[in-house]
Amino acid sequence: MNSRTPSTLPALAGRRLDELRASAPLVQAITNTVVSTVTANSLLALGASPAMVDAPGEAGAFAPIADALLINLGTPQENTVAAMHEAAESAGRAGTPWVLDPVAVGALPLRTTAAGLLVAARPTVVRGNASEIIAVAGAGSGGRGTDSTATVADAEDAARELAVRTGGVVAVSGAVDLITDGTRTARVHNGHILLTRVTGGGCVLGAVMAAFTAGGGDPFEAVIAATVVYGLAAERAAALAPRPGSFSVALLDSLDAVTAGLVEQKAIIR
Amino acid sequence: MNSRTPSTLPALAGRRLDELRASAPLVQAITNTVVSTVTANSLLALGASPAMVDAPGEAGAFAPIADALLINLGTPQENTVAAMHEAAESAGRAGTPWVLDPVAVGALPLRTTAAGLLVAARPTVVRGNASEIIAVAGAGSGGRGTDSTATVADAEDAARELAVRTGGVVAVSGAVDLITDGTRTARVHNGHILLTRVTGGGCVLGAVMAAFTAGGGDPFEAVIAATVVYGLAAERAAALAPRPGSFSVALLDSLDAVTAGLVEQKAIIR
Amino acid sequence: MNSRTPSTLPALAGRRLDELRASAPLVQAITNTVVSTVTANSLLALGASPAMVDAPGEAGAFAPIADALLINLGTPQENTVAAMHEAAESAGRAGTPWVLDPVAVGALPLRTTAAGLLVAARPTVVRGNASEIIAVAGAGSGGRGTDSTATVADAEDAARELAVRTGGVVAVSGAVDLITDGTRTARVHNGHILLTRVTGGGCVLGAVMAAFTAGGGDPFEAVIAATVVYGLAAERAAALAPRPGSFSVALLDSLDAVTAGLVEQKAIIR
Repeated sequence: MNSRTPSTLPALAGRRLDELRASAPLVQAITNTVVSTVTANSLLALGASPAMVDAPGEAGAFAPIADALLINLGTPQENTVAAMHEAAESAGRAGTPWVLDPVAVGALPLRTTAAGLLVAARPTVVRGNASEIIAVAGAGSGGRGTDSTATVADAEDAARELAVRTGGVVAVSGAVDLITDGTRTARVHNGHILLTRVTGGGCVLGAVMAAFTAGGGDPFEAVIAATVVYGLAAERAAALAPRPGSFSVALLDSLDAVTAGLVEQKAIIR
Repeated sequence: MNSRTPSTLPALAGRRLDELRASAPLVQAITNTVVSTVTANSLLALGASPAMVDAPGEAGAFAPIADALLINLGTPQENTVAAMHEAAESAGRAGTPWVLDPVAVGALPLRTTAAGLLVAARPTVVRGNASEIIAVAGAGSGGRGTDSTATVADAEDAARELAVRTGGVVAVSGAVDLITDGTRTARVHNGHILLTRVTGGGCVLGAVMAAFTAGGGDPFEAVIAATVVYGLAAERAAALAPRPGSFSVALLDSLDAVTAGLVEQKAIIR
Repeated sequence: MNSRTPSTLPALAGRRLDELRASAPLVQAITNTVVSTVTANSLLALGASPAMVDAPGEAGAFAPIADALLINLGTPQENTVAAMHEAAESAGRAGTPWVLDPVAVGALPLRTTAAGLLVAARPTVVRGNASEIIAVAGAGSGGRGTDSTATVADAEDAARELAVRTGGVVAVSGAVDLITDGTRTARVHNGHILLTRVTGGGCVLGAVMAAFTAGGGDPFEAVIAATVVYGLAAERAAALAPRPGSFSVALLDSLDAVTAGLVEQKAIIR
């Protein structure tokens, strides 16, 4: 951070958004089949460049070229899990920041095993709902599909412990999002309940986090910025479109429309 | 059905919609890659909770947790077909109701073999177009891709015979939808031709049927309710948006907007 | 071409659009998981009939039934690559025209190997951005993911050489699209920059080309017609919706709305 570093987190988040758009980071996404389209479209709308390189033999080769990597365990098949492990290892060696989204971990066997190995590879960020973070931290058995059966407050200790273990950032998504690096903790109050009425509401946030970590710098600040920008886009979308189909469309438009000025003005970080 | 059971099918369909939203059933979907996103979004818009658990080793483990299961043969790969068989067997043992959608069966070899085995596992509901139902019943060789080359009337005998064989319900989709349990037969006149201009127009109906069977009770009534609700949502969407892109968006909005009152008032069941 | 053949390329493109809608060609698409939904929806909106038959054992059996075939290398997995080879061979034997879209070839190993074999099978059309066409022609090492690092002009010689080698048509997508069969060359100026802000902006064009080649006749003219129609749909969509989410929706609507008259009037082909 140089001398022009904004003094507040909202101003910093706004500046990171401008930096993201100026650099158009290449974000490799190995994500689930249900949200791959909306993930790519969200990254494009935000100003990043998605690359859904998820085949074994290609995923590891691409991770050093990418500016950031997302690994999402939503629909793990044998081939994509192999691609995840090779990409995570390759990203680690190359210094490419990466985000792990352990969808429905704890409740289901394949992804739970895979998540354990991926956490050991020390992701830059782990993002999940409360049940998922508790399960990944080894403190519980997970939720019911993608629905969390725990609250964000329930997951706070697990999140801190997990952040210490990975040396990275852990984000717990919920009505209020909690972000911690084990030492510092922030709560972001932006967002909208309609995100729970569209598929990918949480998964896309993981991709947005990856895009924000691409710029380097402090990943704790990057994850806060991603959460604020995404939450504000959802707020803007919900104001335009109160039902889920048109909300999805407005959310993509809003990822394009949100500005650093809006972020600085409307971010609620505590 | 208790003493407050509505005396008409339209009123019953409306009540089932309210019950679905009150219970938010967890619907496991093993569906084709083209429609997985719109299927998840449609279930969310309707008020259900989708879980696209389609990996071998997870699909069978999840079926007893789910409130209903959809198996759609649209893009069968070796791994997802294995997941389908394990989920169907597990659902059968656990008493989880399940819907089979035999997309393009008859025309193509892998799915035709898979459909034969799945029908033998006695799905609660089989939903398809006329060509598909005729092919599954063993009375014909299928259509041309997802396009039916037969009429709903052509498939009526095959549908009844298939329902007797599975002990479940069979639904034939078309301009007018035919629903039978082998003894009773109903025709639903709701729907819109624009459903044939968007991908998943039929596949999503299979998922909606799964959500309605989740509540237990008579699956014949559940399938009628699902068909009416989906058809009315399509009618509402087409009135708002006469072209296919915006129709898709309006259809999701309409699955959220349709009410029990509208169902009771506008259902056409004969 | 009979005596009523229009004397100008714009008029010819308009007539081909009418012919496409009258025949509703069945287009088999083996495409990447990110764009499969929008590809199917775009074909439906245009007036074609999509069939995403991409399993080994089915893909080859379906290619002779289909009126045209698209093979897109965006997310190559072992099973889908096997399906591509079997479909290409089967299409070649049956005389089904087919389009190869070598997404990100050159930059990544699996798809580069696959593209080499597929080019040797002599696709009717190869469509890509400048980096991809240069890489497929063997003249360079590809771009950065799906982003071209070369200009259309850079790829002109490679495109001609590749067209001579395949005996087919090669299309280079960019701000201005170049289309060549090795002898004749045309440039289409229709289109919109928003196509680069939504996933599938280029991939869908490959599917539209496949639909236009289905009618038989001169594939050079078919590819020009496809490029003009798609470009004009994008222009119409951008005029209605200047942000990427609503642009995607308007693009589908516009593929339905564009008429032969509009094509004849607004096509810019040089």
